[in-house]
Amino acid sequence: MELNINCNQEKYKIILEKGIINKIGEYINLNRKVALISDEGVPEQYITAIKSQCNNCLTIILKQGEISKSFETFEFCLKELISNNFTRNDLIIALGGGVVGDLAGFVASSYMRGIDFINVPTTTLSQIDSSIGGKVGINVNKIKNCVGAFYQPKCVFIDFDVLKTLNKRLFNEGLVEAIKAGLIMDKELFEMFESEQLDIEKIIYKSLVVKKYFVEKDEKEMHERKILNFGHTIGHAYESYYGLKKFHHGECVAMGMMKIIDNEKIKNRLENILKKLDIPTSNTANKEEIFEYIKNDKKAFSDKISIIKLKEIGCAFIEEIELERLRDIL
Amino acid sequence: MELNINCNQEKYKIILEKGIINKIGEYINLNRKVALISDEGVPEQYITAIKSQCNNCLTIILKQGEISKSFETFEFCLKELISNNFTRNDLIIALGGGVVGDLAGFVASSYMRGIDFINVPTTTLSQIDSSIGGKVGINVNKIKNCVGAFYQPKCVFIDFDVLKTLNKRLFNEGLVEAIKAGLIMDKELFEMFESEQLDIEKIIYKSLVVKKYFVEKDEKEMHERKILNFGHTIGHAYESYYGLKKFHHGECVAMGMMKIIDNEKIKNRLENILKKLDIPTSNTANKEEIFEYIKNDKKAFSDKISIIKLKEIGCAFIEEIELERLRDIL
Repeated sequence: MELNINCNQEKYKIILEKGIINKIGEYINLNRKVALISDEGVPEQYITAIKSQCNNCLTIILKQGEISKSFETFEFCLKELISNNFTRNDLIIALGGGVVGDLAGFVASSYMRGIDFINVPTTTLSQIDSSIGGKVGINVNKIKNCVGAFYQPKCVFIDFDVLKTLNKRLFNEGLVEAIKAGLIMDKELFEMFESEQLDIEKIIYKSLVVKKYFVEKDEKEMHERKILNFGHTIGHAYESYYGLKKFHHGECVAMGMMKIIDNEKIKNRLENILKKLDIPTSNTANKEEIFEYIKNDKKAFSDKISIIKLKEIGCAFIEEIELERLRDIL
Repeated sequence: MELNINCNQEKYKIILEKGIINKIGEYINLNRKVALISDEGVPEQYITAIKSQCNNCLTIILKQGEISKSFETFEFCLKELISNNFTRNDLIIALGGGVVGDLAGFVASSYMRGIDFINVPTTTLSQIDSSIGGKVGINVNKIKNCVGAFYQPKCVFIDFDVLKTLNKRLFNEGLVEAIKAGLIMDKELFEMFESEQLDIEKIIYKSLVVKKYFVEKDEKEMHERKILNFGHTIGHAYESYYGLKKFHHGECVAMGMMKIIDNEKIKNRLENILKKLDIPTSNTANKEEIFEYIKNDKKAFSDKISIIKLKEIGCAFIEEIELERLRDIL
């Protein structure tokens, strides 16, 4: 399967195929210097699968987790590229989850003011969500993604096979972004989670179609694309509050969605799905502290904030509310 | 006077006017948080002129010189913005020379993935060259501008009055980029430097017209824009060699142009102009080390390199040569 993303600056393909990780060289010129950025959690076999297709491959293995989306790691990677004489015509490959993709993408966007970048996401979360759309960046002072760029990859390779080695918790948390995609735009996608068997390939494909719609319409997230942040304003605050450790991104978004949905019927249906997937639906975070984190969130504009609400399953809208009103919602 | 720059992503104005620094608020919304980034060399009166137009102004004063185009300063500025709760809708103003503009622009491009940025250049060099075109960035491991972005300002304000407080050496080194603009595209501009009296306003305007042509044609410097790098490949190597200290940027470019021009007649005319302006025309740098710096320069592609050569005054072209051939030129 293929999807074409047409942004203002860039057009690129998402290629979805079992075993595609072994055939990247058929699509992209690997006959140049390649920096393969991955992390300690990615099985060796996938790293080898890519390295074996390159002539000249510098491998950078990051620590696993949000800790690598830091200034230090950003600087480290750039200095590695410099000391290995990478030029503007060389290539960065991200192999891993959202952290690896966000960090490697920001490195690619900044090195020599931008070199080629491809993304090979290895988690459900990154296959469903973070690998496309061009949002790259790092966290600073516990604020998620507050430094970064909009930078599109040259190509994204989604290999369903690599999900087999993912542990259940990571597999399931990634599905939250697919549930979100269903809630904001695709009722059928949402209802797939209420059936017995999950058709993961179809879920990923349909989620990417939703993401493609918003990214093409509003690449820089000035208007419509904000809808993709459904559940994220509160979710990001949970991530900051818990120091990006106790809960994963998808879990925080799940709890964020639970908070923001006011229709009890939809909330119950969502809760049932989340429970089936062993995803937490609430937490005991201090509400005042959460409120403070939201105030510092980049989506906050003076004393107002844009939040995303559901009209019904498959239909969301943006509402600008007084920041103070969020206290009640929390 | 005004010039309109039409890039793919952005359209913006350059406004050239005496005293414009006191009227920025007539063109740009200053009724929001403003981070004014400047350096110790900029006279207090200009900082005050801008601050007095803002309600809520955070002033960041950098150390003077290339030392501020560093990772440390980049990180420092971003953290200042975070701790002062700057949002995506706020504004960064660069007030200073090329260093301030490059650093502040990169900060603006990265903060929250891009916030509004305006540039108020205060040196001939930045008024003539670096304030437009969207190239922003920092130096890492002595390699100039090897980390950065293409990020266009919302507006550039060129106030001829502020040049009055510039010392003669800084004033003259900036003119080198105008001489370059003349050499590559505008014979009349070049010949203005051979007359008794320099019409600085006309020189700046005509230089910006040349820059506008290349920036609009090739924003990301894939092809034609490389011509603007005339004299810079060797010039940048001199800057790296001398640790960005002994010679200024314009002086290094002047010596770089002297090296790369092979037509003796043109070379003599250029030499006469440079001497009149007290700009060095040669140096005693170790040629092998210069060659090594060029190899590490971002314009180097494997064993070939693109250099810019003159056909005649007002007409330049790109030539791809073997890297080794540069040894002879040096």
